[in-house]
Parts: sequence; C-alpha cells; structure tokens
Amino acid sequence: MNLEHLAKQLAFIHEIDKLKYIQRKTRLFNSQRNENDAEHSWHLAMMAMVLAEHANEKVDIQKVVKMLLIHDIVEIDSGDVFLYDTTANHTNTEAERIAAERIFGLLPDQQKEEFISVWEEFEAGETAEARFAKSMDRLEPILQNVSNEGGTWAEYDVKYETVIKKSSGIQRGSQILWNHTQVLFEESIEKGILKKS
Amino acid sequence: MNLEHLAKQLAFIHEIDKLKYIQRKTRLFNSQRNENDAEHSWHLAMMAMVLAEHANEKVDIQKVVKMLLIHDIVEIDSGDVFLYDTTANHTNTEAERIAAERIFGLLPDQQKEEFISVWEEFEAGETAEARFAKSMDRLEPILQNVSNEGGTWAEYDVKYETVIKKSSGIQRGSQILWNHTQVLFEESIEKGILKKS
Repeated sequence: MNLEHLAKQLAFIHEIDKLKYIQRKTRLFNSQRNENDAEHSWHLAMMAMVLAEHANEKVDIQKVVKMLLIHDIVEIDSGDVFLYDTTANHTNTEAERIAAERIFGLLPDQQKEEFISVWEEFEAGETAEARFAKSMDRLEPILQNVSNEGGTWAEYDVKYETVIKKSSGIQRGSQILWNHTQVLFEESIEKGILKKS
Repeated sequence: MNLEHLAKQLAFIHEIDKLKYIQRKTRLFNSQRNENDAEHSWHLAMMAMVLAEHANEKVDIQKVVKMLLIHDIVEIDSGDVFLYDTTANHTNTEAERIAAERIFGLLPDQQKEEFISVWEEFEAGETAEARFAKSMDRLEPILQNVSNEGGTWAEYDVKYETVIKKSSGIQRGSQILWNHTQVLFEESIEKGILKKS
C-alpha cells in the first residue's frame, strides 16, 4: 500500500467537507432555511435513482449519480451562482475550471482525471447521462419553490418567462418530467406564487 | 405515463428532505457546527467512490453508493443514535423497520421493495458491499474527530477502548483503512485528543 496515495485521497475527502458551507439561494422543501450544496447534491442523486425510468434515453444511472454527487464541488472555490440570475452564466467558467484543477487535483492522478472528466461531461451536457443529470438540477428548485409558496420566485421576483427559460433543460433529459413541470407552473400561476411579466 | 406512479415518487422526494434536519452528534471536519444526515450520506458516498480500491473484496460500487445514500433515511422517524453510545443499539431496531415501511412505502411498490431490500442488506452487514459501506460509516467520524481536536471523543469523554470497539467494523470492510485508522488512533493518543481508560 502506497501511503502517499491514501494520504491524497484523505486530503480530498477532508477538503470537500467545505461543500457543506456553500449556501444556495433555494430554501429547503419545508422552507425554514437555505439548502447547502452537499445536501443539494445528495438530494439530486436520490432524485436520479428514483426518477431514472423517466429519462428520454436509457442512462447509466451509476454515472448520473456520480455526476450529481460531484457536480457542485467546484463551488467550494467559485461559489454558487443563482439559477434564475439573468446576468451571471453559471456554465463552466474559467473560475470553475481552475477550481476543478485545484480540488480534484488533491486526488491521485488517475482519480483526478476521472473526476474532472465526469464533471466536464456534466458541464457539456451532451451525453444522455449529462442531460438527465442536468434535468434533476433544474427540477429540484421547482419542486422546492412549489412546496415553499413560491420560494425564490417570490423572494427574488423571478417571473414565469425567466423560470421557463432557465428550466427548459429538463425537457432535454426527460419529456415526462418536463410535461409535469408545466402542470406545476400552471398550478403555481393559479395560486399566485408564480407570476407572468 | 401513470400519473399516480410519478406522484408517489415525488411524494418520497419531498419527504426525504427531512433528512437535512436530522442532526448528528459529530461536527463537520472544520468543527463549526454539527453535521446533518443528508450531508453525512453525501460525504460517505463520496468516500466510497474515492476509497473503493481499498475494499477487502471487489465491490459493486453502484450498490455501495446507493446503500450509503439511503442508509440513514429511517432516522427521519427514528432519530440519530450516537455511534459511541454504550447503551443504545442502533442496528435495525423495530422503530427503524417501521420507519422504513412508512418512508420507502411512499414509493411505487417495486421501488419500495428495492430500497427496503438495499437498506436491509446494509443493516445486516453480511455482503461485501454492506461491509464496505459500513466501514465508511465508521471511518467518517474518526476522520472528523481527528480533524476536530478530538471532536465527539473529547466532548462526550469517549475513551480509546470504546472507540476501538465501535470502529472495528472498518476491518471487515477494509484491512488497509483499518491499518490506517490504528495510526490515527496512536497519533490522537500522543496528541492527547483521545484518551485510554
């Protein structure tokens, strides 16, 4: 056993604890406090396991779960970007690439490359697995906001048109879940917790 | 698409949000606050992916990750039991079985059975996957306490002899990680953050 190899793995395990301190704008389903990135990652992995049958294409669920567990780790350095932000672009910025290099770089080389490759696949959103993983990432805040009397839609005055635009990636991963999302939007508009411009 | 089927899945996804409110005794690696069960489950799944090569036997890592993501969900109803508690037995109590029935019972029948089966396999600790998953569950608090100037060992006056006994399951999952744990114990005793009786 190469002790340096294990020491690198344990350094990574220690470092990613910091994901528990990255606060998201979104509040928990029962609205008492903001969600952090570690909780978010766990919940998305659970959602993917439960909802996998609704993916547009057959997906390797192990890869989807892995993607979701690691997809926000770069935010330890680069911070969370609000999904419904209309100016910042959260997709694979230079800051995120530098963060990936530093944090996954704590691992032994082969694992570093493997994790960065999975993270890049998620960010690119081109494979069936990445598309389905991204649909989970878009669906969770909708479920949370519906459960929270509008949640971030109400708090940050995000209108229906922005929500639709920012959520449309769900359709690329799952038409069935996208159809259901439309029902949730309609109900939310009727209840007055989501407003049109 | 059977709408009732999807509604059941979403009800489960909504319910398990409560895992984010179950506080563990253990504090985060950087010691500022207690860890919750959702964060804990995410961290164990990450540890398993990173440390899988050290398992005593070849493991189906997808199953290990699934086990770890769901292993504490029953605590939504039955609450967390402190690992180093010398009276309470945290293993598959009647309360936990009732909780599993209720919470996984929110899912469509086939998924309910599948999740309960994986949870029971974890609890039984007989398969290679369950043994390795359990070794992650025992290893994390040790890493946290070492990182936290003794953490729960210091806070609850837990002695070396109890820690060794409660941690020995690590050996059943990974001799390599168990060997490393012994080094951590020795260093902790030298530093005075873990005491012998």
